[in-house]
Amino acid sequence: MSLLIVGTVAFDAIETPYGKTDKIIGGAATYIGLSASSLLDQSMLVSVVGEDFPEETIQLMQSKGIDTEGLQIKKGEKTFFWSGKYHRDMNTRDTMDTQLNVLENFDPFVPEKFRDAEFLMLGNLMPAIQQKVLDQMNKRPKLVVLDTMNFWMDHFMSDLTEALKEVDVLTINDEEARQLSGEYSLVKAAQRILKMGPKYLIIKKGEHGAMLFDKDHIFFSPAFPLADVLDPTGAGDTFAGGFVSYLAHHNEITWESMKRAVAHATAMASFCVEKFGIERLLEIKSAELEERKLALAELTRVE
Amino acid sequence: MSLLIVGTVAFDAIETPYGKTDKIIGGAATYIGLSASSLLDQSMLVSVVGEDFPEETIQLMQSKGIDTEGLQIKKGEKTFFWSGKYHRDMNTRDTMDTQLNVLENFDPFVPEKFRDAEFLMLGNLMPAIQQKVLDQMNKRPKLVVLDTMNFWMDHFMSDLTEALKEVDVLTINDEEARQLSGEYSLVKAAQRILKMGPKYLIIKKGEHGAMLFDKDHIFFSPAFPLADVLDPTGAGDTFAGGFVSYLAHHNEITWESMKRAVAHATAMASFCVEKFGIERLLEIKSAELEERKLALAELTRVE
Repeated sequence: MSLLIVGTVAFDAIETPYGKTDKIIGGAATYIGLSASSLLDQSMLVSVVGEDFPEETIQLMQSKGIDTEGLQIKKGEKTFFWSGKYHRDMNTRDTMDTQLNVLENFDPFVPEKFRDAEFLMLGNLMPAIQQKVLDQMNKRPKLVVLDTMNFWMDHFMSDLTEALKEVDVLTINDEEARQLSGEYSLVKAAQRILKMGPKYLIIKKGEHGAMLFDKDHIFFSPAFPLADVLDPTGAGDTFAGGFVSYLAHHNEITWESMKRAVAHATAMASFCVEKFGIERLLEIKSAELEERKLALAELTRVE
Repeated sequence: MSLLIVGTVAFDAIETPYGKTDKIIGGAATYIGLSASSLLDQSMLVSVVGEDFPEETIQLMQSKGIDTEGLQIKKGEKTFFWSGKYHRDMNTRDTMDTQLNVLENFDPFVPEKFRDAEFLMLGNLMPAIQQKVLDQMNKRPKLVVLDTMNFWMDHFMSDLTEALKEVDVLTINDEEARQLSGEYSLVKAAQRILKMGPKYLIIKKGEHGAMLFDKDHIFFSPAFPLADVLDPTGAGDTFAGGFVSYLAHHNEITWESMKRAVAHATAMASFCVEKFGIERLLEIKSAELEERKLALAELTRVE
């Protein structure tokens, strides 16, 4: 099934206890697209970069089956840049620098041939931009997944709650679930959020795993226990890309397929954090992906 | 199989975002014993209280099959008292007051008829006291489980590392695993701790579940997702009691039985936190325990 991905394509500079990078390729849509490419031969991208963005990276995306017709390249402008430093626990980070650049006036345009996409992944972006993409679709996609973050809740809550009404699956982290719902208990937070529009909610807890909720069920996937996490950047986007691409690939939207999609997404995210930036995502072999999914299933198996 | 439990029997005063108690019954050995009594008809207790400790509670323990011959009652002295206040996240707490009282000079005496116990649960106590109990056993128990905490690592690390050499299973939380090993990654921390004596390590992560390690395997059990956690006090002890009593009940010490024991322990701990103190532990019906264990298994099941 066809998948349309909307989100940032960016430069990141990252510091973790394990090292430090110069400007490297980042962005939610980049991670989502690369993650999705492990299951899908084709996907579609709507995003924006400046003219400083490397042509090779665009070609790399294309080589992964990502149609970049919806990627605006702004002459004379610069690509969105984010720089962050992770604390030792890797669950918290400080933003060192944010240069919106092309994002400041990003007006997403969905090419005509993208407008019938059956799966829509709205990566973390200003809610009004996510809404603009939704509004351009010819028909309502079969499944709309939206990722967001606390920043938009702080400053654009009403836009966000509007967008949520049209969403099937929301992915956020535990703190964001608490902020969005006003409930501390994640079980109660989920119950409340599932009344705001989404039929499914995924609460990402980083090293503590991920929870999937619908109104009647809860599913939990632990994170894969790794000896070393080098860089958590993009793990949530890789998860989202793994999740939505699994559903698009199998074209089945049921509680059971959602659970399998979360398991696949968890395995994908576990690779992402093993190296800095997108590096590890580009190397995943299907045999090691299968092996990790089996190990993940084994991790919680009791006879 | 026979189980000997060593640990505190105490008074607690607890404040959580959900309420506040006066002096109520607490103590590691109390929770361990009550938790174990859901599977074992008999167990043995070594501990100490003052003459202020209610006779009814001792009778309650006896009614649960706990042999209190090893419970010293110190005339003219007062029972150990701890008072704590939990933060909103329930994973962190401040100690408001600690009155060691009878614990200050606690010299554990293991009655002769307890000295052949095949399962030994050393609840959280000063490591030298745990060691003294170990030393009084007629023969090495089939399984020794030790629970400890950061306070003993801060002040009595050499006693603790000595005791650890004689232990089969160590149960600690994630921060303590990091402190004990000097490794941030829990996978690496476990590898290091498993070289210090214990053949098995359980890392308790509170609401984030529990991990069981031996040198070749990792098992993970999520915590049961509850809408309300009223009071986390004793959850770790209830877990330990559930764990060791499961193994004693089934008299099987293998990786697979350890996993089942962790699952049982997780279910028991999930009841403990539903009310203040030991209240909920006293009410558990076997049908609801089975139901919760099934729900817990279902929580991570992917087809």
